Amino acid sequence: MSSLDPVLAHIEAQRADHLARLMDYLRHPSISAQDIGIGKVAGLLVEMLERLGMEAEAVPTAGHPMVLGRRTEVPGAPTVLLYGHYDVQPPEPLEEWISPPFEPTLRDGRIYARGAGDNKGQHFAQLLAIESWLAVHGRLPCNVIVLLEGEEEIGSPRIADFVRAHAERLKADLVITADGPLHPSGRPVVTFGVRGVVNFELRVRTGRTDAHSGNHGGTMPNAIWTLVHLLSTMKDPDGRITIDGLHDPILPPGNAERAAAEALPVDVAGYLTEMGLSKLDTPDDRGFHDRLMFHPTLTINGLHGGYGGAGSKTVLPCAAVAKCDIRLVPDMTPEQALDCVRAHVAQAAPEVEVVAQGGMLPSRTPIDSPFTAPIVAAVRAARGEEPYLIPSAGGSLPDYVFTKILGIPAFVVPYANADEANHAPNENIEVALFHAGIRTGAALLDQLGQMRV
Amino acid sequence: MSSLDPVLAHIEAQRADHLARLMDYLRHPSISAQDIGIGKVAGLLVEMLERLGMEAEAVPTAGHPMVLGRRTEVPGAPTVLLYGHYDVQPPEPLEEWISPPFEPTLRDGRIYARGAGDNKGQHFAQLLAIESWLAVHGRLPCNVIVLLEGEEEIGSPRIADFVRAHAERLKADLVITADGPLHPSGRPVVTFGVRGVVNFELRVRTGRTDAHSGNHGGTMPNAIWTLVHLLSTMKDPDGRITIDGLHDPILPPGNAERAAAEALPVDVAGYLTEMGLSKLDTPDDRGFHDRLMFHPTLTINGLHGGYGGAGSKTVLPCAAVAKCDIRLVPDMTPEQALDCVRAHVAQAAPEVEVVAQGGMLPSRTPIDSPFTAPIVAAVRAARGEEPYLIPSAGGSLPDYVFTKILGIPAFVVPYANADEANHAPNENIEVALFHAGIRTGAALLDQLGQMRV
Repeated sequence: MSSLDPVLAHIEAQRADHLARLMDYLRHPSISAQDIGIGKVAGLLVEMLERLGMEAEAVPTAGHPMVLGRRTEVPGAPTVLLYGHYDVQPPEPLEEWISPPFEPTLRDGRIYARGAGDNKGQHFAQLLAIESWLAVHGRLPCNVIVLLEGEEEIGSPRIADFVRAHAERLKADLVITADGPLHPSGRPVVTFGVRGVVNFELRVRTGRTDAHSGNHGGTMPNAIWTLVHLLSTMKDPDGRITIDGLHDPILPPGNAERAAAEALPVDVAGYLTEMGLSKLDTPDDRGFHDRLMFHPTLTINGLHGGYGGAGSKTVLPCAAVAKCDIRLVPDMTPEQALDCVRAHVAQAAPEVEVVAQGGMLPSRTPIDSPFTAPIVAAVRAARGEEPYLIPSAGGSLPDYVFTKILGIPAFVVPYANADEANHAPNENIEVALFHAGIRTGAALLDQLGQMRV
Repeated sequence: MSSLDPVLAHIEAQRADHLARLMDYLRHPSISAQDIGIGKVAGLLVEMLERLGMEAEAVPTAGHPMVLGRRTEVPGAPTVLLYGHYDVQPPEPLEEWISPPFEPTLRDGRIYARGAGDNKGQHFAQLLAIESWLAVHGRLPCNVIVLLEGEEEIGSPRIADFVRAHAERLKADLVITADGPLHPSGRPVVTFGVRGVVNFELRVRTGRTDAHSGNHGGTMPNAIWTLVHLLSTMKDPDGRITIDGLHDPILPPGNAERAAAEALPVDVAGYLTEMGLSKLDTPDDRGFHDRLMFHPTLTINGLHGGYGGAGSKTVLPCAAVAKCDIRLVPDMTPEQALDCVRAHVAQAAPEVEVVAQGGMLPSRTPIDSPFTAPIVAAVRAARGEEPYLIPSAGGSLPDYVFTKILGIPAFVVPYANADEANHAPNENIEVALFHAGIRTGAALLDQLGQMRV
């Protein structure tokens, strides 16, 4: 009999208790944006980590504390850093909740509560996996560090500095995050990366004041035309970004990443219908997942200038602003991308000001990492299904703090249903998936425990 | 002795009376936008026209009445239609007036009151010129039709239909409008035309809803990019409009028009300073007045889509709107221009909707009209200065109702100072220019009376 089987049996036996304890955990609000309940929940977690035999601490920061626990007693076994966050989104609009956000309610096989999926239900499952393993075996098969952030829902403003300052205590061989949803089909996924992002504004003022389009049309430059002509030099009509040097640092995806992207299911017709589109964006010669994973984008988030009210107004606008973001793929950086934008604008429209608004590095863990096989095996063991391997999400998360600052591979192994309604009213997690999450957590410990580093 | 000299002497003798009567006229509000005092002022004008021996009438319309007077007793002499408007702009903001808008006040050689310059002071000068001529000679030297509109300040919505319906009663050989200001230098001007205009919106919706720029950047089309790329095909970076067929109907200005435009003073440095510009608009190879008189423009009046608040928002916008106007030169028409825009958009970005918002034909009376010489001579006689001849104003006014519907040449001979502050608080007319306007009106009657048609 394997080491895992009795743990899975224990988990099965504890279903009612695990569920009751999750519901109890979800009763405690911990709303970072509103500074509600943070200290209380951080304290509960430290107590729980201590009960798991960890040296545990709520490490103060300039913002909300980082909850840190360590149990590193297995020489030669890998150390896994389990990252999650104990803060939740504000629950508003309250009137749209069928049951109150902090009165967890079972309905239709789901637990409804703020944080059920994002992220309390998921990191709690990880902790229950550790607890279950200890209940059966008395010691863990690998070393575990738990890091639970209290500011993820407000943009993780302090995590990079925290990880830099505590790199020694966080020294691990890999990071696993249980957050986000499974594939909409219900299949489990393992995600290996995220795109980065850099935000900036293009601002132009061509005159002192808006003017009459008849009396000045032909003599006074138009701020919107300036932006239109500048932007049209930054991306061609076929959708290819034409900013010199922007693509230079891009590492083409490896064969394993390409193969994984191609293996993902594609339903373009369904996507078009869901989003109300008549066609996919340009360029036309890229596969669906290829577009989201392996290419930078230049998105105009907003463009505003001149008259926007009802009817017409014959005004010649003197000012306009375009807000833009560029999604970054490895090894682009926000600074490098912004430098290219600045150089392009200085040449094409020097009267336009580029205003940087921050960004985030991309992150991508190679699919052929030595940890991929054990993680996939763990998911298979816990779920009886093969996970989809997602080389990169389209969006941006601060995974780079692990891959670039700590220099270790990072994996996202989500436990929640695709319709978890995170950030929205009636957030929920399927009860069965919560239990499957505990099983997956235990299987991960088991698989990692069989490795030697 | 000329017929004019005793009239000018009479006008000189009546200065105090004329000024007092203008101030009395300005005491009566006639605010078309607020429907205040219109009927009363129309009635006063009909009485005044009757005292000038005219068959006079306030002709009802679906809006405010048109005041019409005719005195056509001189066979063989030309008939001049004197156009003006008796409605005024709302006086708000009242707190910015030094003296109340409807309590005309003399200060620094000016009469301050709403309508002093725009347009009561100017058409009243024309009527006092007729009165003065009649006082001296008992009969007029030419035929006169007076048309005073009550809705000019709300965009003349009914004048085209009115002129069409009453073409017989309005049958004249030329139209003279005393409205607008002299040249900023103080020199008189005669203006021969206006650019037309057509307003339209370019609207695009690329999806059902705005989306996350990370999760959808690369797959979902961006409405703002669609407009940027479309607009960039409509005007090149050098400022030349690139809409097929748009320029086809353009009649190049004649030698007289070119010469007149070149004779106008130009102070580019002063213009740049006044407007806060670092340079003139493109294209670079056109003279200052050439730009405003002889070329169409394509102005983006406003462009709005996506996020416009503080900071950044990583949104991918599904909708955007550009409001545009095209200024038209002879013989472009709003319909023709719009047809070209529609054809261009249908080819370049069929997903974009073109929404027409109305327009106005251009109008241009040839500078070598047989009436130019007598008008210039009249200005010279009344003012002792040569007027600048302005082939076209940059803006748009419904002059076409005279040149295209009635088919007669139209001239604008303004009497007011350049700083009349029309449409603004502390509107005024210089007292000396009001009297000069009466003299000019009399000199025009004299000059036209010497013609035979």
